[in-house]
Amino acid sequence: MPSRRSKLYPTPEDAETAFYEAFERADLAGMMTVWAEDDDVVCIHPQGPRLCGFEAVRESWVQIFAGGMSRLKMKTIESRKFAGQSVAVHAVVEVLSVPGQQGPTQSVCATNVYELTDNGWRMVVHHASPIPEPAPQPAEDVADSPRTLH
Amino acid sequence: MPSRRSKLYPTPEDAETAFYEAFERADLAGMMTVWAEDDDVVCIHPQGPRLCGFEAVRESWVQIFAGGMSRLKMKTIESRKFAGQSVAVHAVVEVLSVPGQQGPTQSVCATNVYELTDNGWRMVVHHASPIPEPAPQPAEDVADSPRTLH
Repeated sequence: MPSRRSKLYPTPEDAETAFYEAFERADLAGMMTVWAEDDDVVCIHPQGPRLCGFEAVRESWVQIFAGGMSRLKMKTIESRKFAGQSVAVHAVVEVLSVPGQQGPTQSVCATNVYELTDNGWRMVVHHASPIPEPAPQPAEDVADSPRTLH
Repeated sequence: MPSRRSKLYPTPEDAETAFYEAFERADLAGMMTVWAEDDDVVCIHPQGPRLCGFEAVRESWVQIFAGGMSRLKMKTIESRKFAGQSVAVHAVVEVLSVPGQQGPTQSVCATNVYELTDNGWRMVVHHASPIPEPAPQPAEDVADSPRTLH
């Protein structure tokens, strides 16, 4: 297994590519090479709890990759990028599909945050949530609902 | 109404404080003063679709504030901050409560992204999703589920 230091992502885009490649391959070592080894990293899987810290995030990927994810293909579309010198944010739509099946299985919106560390750009936040289906409620329903959070 | 230029948030924290104050007051003008006037801003309300662009975000707050949100109180806890020179990210937990009622009504995790613009720090991404209740599934259930997205 290559050492973590051997993976120096020179750009946030490189880190993001590695993240989704590791996801598709269910590659735990590859996935955790992308993440900053930091107690403050945050990962929110779709409809999941808020996980803080490298170890909690690692454990979640152990569980996810044990669940048969390796057949899924992922592409990202509609990326909106906010690029700083040491912090970069990519707000993307993830489109998941199963090879051999027609159409996407699900779309997820994700906010990916990368930080420039001593070991290159690393992921520090991955916040993912399902895009609701069917289509959003008509405006009048939203306005009438006192339980809408925000 | 003050012009948008009169509100120059000198730090991401100032912009965040203004965001949550505007939320509590259901103050549309205040809310939209926080956001960057940009086609690339992204807002995802809990369980909502992905909204892109200042006008779409504005319209969503019009609908939300028409829904009786003004009685809610909001505080943020467990903030994790990633601060760059021109891009800053605050991953927070929002705790909403109704004055006079015991306990929080709901907790939401939010990833807030701020960018330094010509008009000070402005919000460019607000990604919010409900924290699931009851507690997360046991590990073996997650591992057994082929439908877990990631």
